Amino acid sequence: MIIVKIGGGKSINIKGIIQDLSSLNEKFIIVHGANALRDEIAQKLGQPKKVVTSASGYSSVFSDDSALDVMMMTYAGLKNKRIVELCQRYGINAVGLSGLDGKIIQGRRNKGIRIKENGKLKIVRDFSGKPKTVNGHLLNLLLDNGYVPLLCVPIIDEHNFAINSENDDIINILQDVVKADKILQFIEAPGFLDDAHDPDSLVKQICQRELKQREEQVSGRMKRKMLALKKLFESGAHKVIISDGRIENPVINALNGGGTTIQ
Amino acid sequence: MIIVKIGGGKSINIKGIIQDLSSLNEKFIIVHGANALRDEIAQKLGQPKKVVTSASGYSSVFSDDSALDVMMMTYAGLKNKRIVELCQRYGINAVGLSGLDGKIIQGRRNKGIRIKENGKLKIVRDFSGKPKTVNGHLLNLLLDNGYVPLLCVPIIDEHNFAINSENDDIINILQDVVKADKILQFIEAPGFLDDAHDPDSLVKQICQRELKQREEQVSGRMKRKMLALKKLFESGAHKVIISDGRIENPVINALNGGGTTIQ
Repeated sequence: MIIVKIGGGKSINIKGIIQDLSSLNEKFIIVHGANALRDEIAQKLGQPKKVVTSASGYSSVFSDDSALDVMMMTYAGLKNKRIVELCQRYGINAVGLSGLDGKIIQGRRNKGIRIKENGKLKIVRDFSGKPKTVNGHLLNLLLDNGYVPLLCVPIIDEHNFAINSENDDIINILQDVVKADKILQFIEAPGFLDDAHDPDSLVKQICQRELKQREEQVSGRMKRKMLALKKLFESGAHKVIISDGRIENPVINALNGGGTTIQ
Repeated sequence: MIIVKIGGGKSINIKGIIQDLSSLNEKFIIVHGANALRDEIAQKLGQPKKVVTSASGYSSVFSDDSALDVMMMTYAGLKNKRIVELCQRYGINAVGLSGLDGKIIQGRRNKGIRIKENGKLKIVRDFSGKPKTVNGHLLNLLLDNGYVPLLCVPIIDEHNFAINSENDDIINILQDVVKADKILQFIEAPGFLDDAHDPDSLVKQICQRELKQREEQVSGRMKRKMLALKKLFESGAHKVIISDGRIENPVINALNGGGTTIQ
């Protein structure tokens, strides 16, 4: 079993990934992003991303009801269905699902963010949260019957509301259930870079105990990814490959030693 | 087994329909539209509906690649996932699928439309077609395991491309597979009207052999609906109720003699 995570960047070669996957003799699950598409459509609809800054100085995306609408349109709608179509063209019988469908990814909504407004502290709460459980019954029902689950956000919260969530966290709880041998993550870079600004500084191997140190080395989304990776190994992952999703044969390259291998 | 068709008009009370369905003790499948939402989003994105007029004078919607994009966003994305969320809130474990997913609705692409351009005849071909087969294996796998399929366009053509299709035709091929006892169709009118402009002219009962005559009486989309109904009875339907989807309890009303019953 392989878990494949496809980043939501504009230059990811999704066709190449799907074509490569169609030649494998292993079962797999795909989790995909769509952030570039989301931002583009949100802009066109006149609903640009909202960002709030917490009282303690951290900024985060604020997912209100209309942001969730755009997420459904772009992740679960356009992106998911175009990938399903591509899969079908390459003989992969994909079934595209958001976390809401059959409650396949259930989570817990965040309590809210403490912000300062006109000098006063207040709590604002959006539709975002952490994935907690997988509907393994539905997931295995599909896998055992020859279907390939193609998953994306939103997921469903404890009161059956749609919420946004991080794909890295979704991968973690999927791993708890499917115990994949390999987890492939396709990003818009050659892999983990020693210097984020130097594409030639690819780190070929990272061992599990190095993750803590690497986490301190990086910033932004990469920091969150390192933290998620640490948890992934706690969930029993043996091998994670973070590799270039922009090249001609992303999966074949990753399986033949491309990118960064963490084990 | 009940097949429920929810029209894509703006004033359909989807919450009322889902709430009613959650109290039934029968299995059901839902097929939904989203035309009002599609038109609204297409307008906002600056991609209004394209219409072509055939050489013989008929106008029809032209579903090009970008129209399919908008269809995926609105039908399979926003509308489908918001209904799944609503279903989950009422305890219905819905799984939202387009016809592409698991090839659950397969069809054949139309050959093209003959148009006259600058005095010359030419054929233009869009992404639309007729549904031909249902993946009964996947449909029954979900139904037998307690999931409620919530279906929408696009469907998948013979070369694995996404195509637009009529929901009335999709209902017909679903009926071939599931042999529903009742088919409920919720529209933005009290039912079939003797005079399309008079909401008080509801026809309570239509017998199957009257359908031909009614087809000649009406025009536009209603004509197509009458034709689809004739075929539905040829597919073994026993009872179809066309009823008001705008009221407080649309399903309870339809099951208690509301709307137009065709049998």
